[in-house]
Amino acid sequence: MRIALDAMGGDHAPVPIVSGAVQAVTADPDLTLVLVGDRAQIEPILESLNAPADRLEIFHASQVVGMNESPVEALRKKPDNSISRSWQLLAEKKVDGIVSAGHTGAMVAGGLRLKRFLPKVRRPGIATVMPTAKGSCVILDVGANVSPKPSHLLQYGVMGSIFARHILNRDNPTIGLMNVGEEAGKGHDLAKDTHNLFHASPLKDRFIGNIEGRDIHRGVCDVVITDGFVGNVVLKVCEGVFDFVMKMVATEVLGALSVEKLQAQMALKGLIEKYDYSSFGGAPLLGIDGICIICHGSSREKAIRNAIAVAAQYGRNKLNEKITQELDALPTGSDEE
Amino acid sequence: MRIALDAMGGDHAPVPIVSGAVQAVTADPDLTLVLVGDRAQIEPILESLNAPADRLEIFHASQVVGMNESPVEALRKKPDNSISRSWQLLAEKKVDGIVSAGHTGAMVAGGLRLKRFLPKVRRPGIATVMPTAKGSCVILDVGANVSPKPSHLLQYGVMGSIFARHILNRDNPTIGLMNVGEEAGKGHDLAKDTHNLFHASPLKDRFIGNIEGRDIHRGVCDVVITDGFVGNVVLKVCEGVFDFVMKMVATEVLGALSVEKLQAQMALKGLIEKYDYSSFGGAPLLGIDGICIICHGSSREKAIRNAIAVAAQYGRNKLNEKITQELDALPTGSDEE
Repeated sequence: MRIALDAMGGDHAPVPIVSGAVQAVTADPDLTLVLVGDRAQIEPILESLNAPADRLEIFHASQVVGMNESPVEALRKKPDNSISRSWQLLAEKKVDGIVSAGHTGAMVAGGLRLKRFLPKVRRPGIATVMPTAKGSCVILDVGANVSPKPSHLLQYGVMGSIFARHILNRDNPTIGLMNVGEEAGKGHDLAKDTHNLFHASPLKDRFIGNIEGRDIHRGVCDVVITDGFVGNVVLKVCEGVFDFVMKMVATEVLGALSVEKLQAQMALKGLIEKYDYSSFGGAPLLGIDGICIICHGSSREKAIRNAIAVAAQYGRNKLNEKITQELDALPTGSDEE
Repeated sequence: MRIALDAMGGDHAPVPIVSGAVQAVTADPDLTLVLVGDRAQIEPILESLNAPADRLEIFHASQVVGMNESPVEALRKKPDNSISRSWQLLAEKKVDGIVSAGHTGAMVAGGLRLKRFLPKVRRPGIATVMPTAKGSCVILDVGANVSPKPSHLLQYGVMGSIFARHILNRDNPTIGLMNVGEEAGKGHDLAKDTHNLFHASPLKDRFIGNIEGRDIHRGVCDVVITDGFVGNVVLKVCEGVFDFVMKMVATEVLGALSVEKLQAQMALKGLIEKYDYSSFGGAPLLGIDGICIICHGSSREKAIRNAIAVAAQYGRNKLNEKITQELDALPTGSDEE
């Protein structure tokens, strides 16, 4: 398994990114990583870490897409950036997958402009794992496709199910459609048409119908299907509420304690780490011909190590072959562009 | 000020609803409430509470819309339900406003079918107050209008600002547009067109542009504008994450304590009550000719009392006259149906 890692991507790059790479190859003897980025910065970090040199290659890229740049413009103005070079390695089949904690928009734009999708895939979607009262679920799309057709969402049902089965280990993953109410007939045209399409599709047995916003964290289903606009807002709202509530708890609950304040602080810290949205191993861009994992910009060693492990598992479980097989069994959407 | 209260609406009706009504008239000497619902159930509750009979009237309605009924069907099959009767009192100008913790969908459908909107209002929207790191903000629409036009959202900008100014006491309320990124040009067509419309409108000085999901609870603006689909999902996701996190804290943080467990438990309980989404005084349906406050189905005395107080404040501050004046200054949308 060969995976390209954008060594320059993320708020804290390159040190914790390279360090996460070293941890990943140390944990996985069948893994080789290609670190894409500035050789002059990466080499000294590898040397300082006593890294296994034979499974950590460097692919030099002289430019970096800044976290606040306009993605399309940055990709155009900086042809030698680490994100485009990573995609190029994937397109040329020199690696099986790519991982980056860099600019999400640039990662998606870089992938979409290559147009190397799996057969039958109409639009790739970003999947994210979320914690729930019953463990976790996967929600997609969270931002690649803000104006999807119902048939795109049906395809996300296939891709999400395969991800839930092989990465989250659900034997019979269930699918819910994000909507404003549970009854059929709720929501806007996209929601109504998608609901009907799922019901008439080979996925109907695992489709539990519409779910509401509060159902996600209750864990009512394994796969949450939504358009990239709603999914992106939901993902960031969850982050916002989590941060907000944790700060309130730190102030008000810890503030009420004296002798056991330290114990409570430790427990709260553990809980924040456990449910930290950035530690779930990154978000795969599903539907690409290859493996692409997008990490949170705030990723450090652990998040990078987890994301690389997910990429390797994704490849070894041949998720893309399974996606292609299952999409073959789906009827072609009547909303074809 | 005369307000009709749906005495039968909500998960716990009628006892805490009627009790909240008694508290409200006791606190406000210029308020009269019309309790709409089953006289045989309401009278004994009033008697047991020693209520001031002269400012608590009963308007008998023999039917109730169940919380799980299809709203449109229920309104049709049960003409004497307490929600329809409340709307009727408003339409006949026998009350200044109505308050209900009953079926939200039925409340909205009941109001929309009457079509008694303020002049110039194209589509009413539901506004909800949310807690933020800087106090609170108002978000609309959260469910009345799942497929709005940009001009509807611009009108929500006016209505939300007036609400923020007079109910949340913000002198110069700022407006943000819910989107998937901060840069102009982000999002789907509705988001892009709405962004442009705000920028070209008299609201441009208070419009801060696009905001992302995590910005809501950071309190980056006073008014969050979004379509009813996204707003509804956001509202319920917030509830879901809040519940989920509070349960985790109860298990993991309280579980780590022994001698100060009780103190932590009390602090956590206080925090849940303080930030409980149901205690923010209900959600007004803005744009109606009259006052309409929709409460959470789980409302008890305090939530009902708060909602009635908001309705009275809304009327005394003449919010509807201000909405009408400010809408007069807006250009008519080019997306007129």
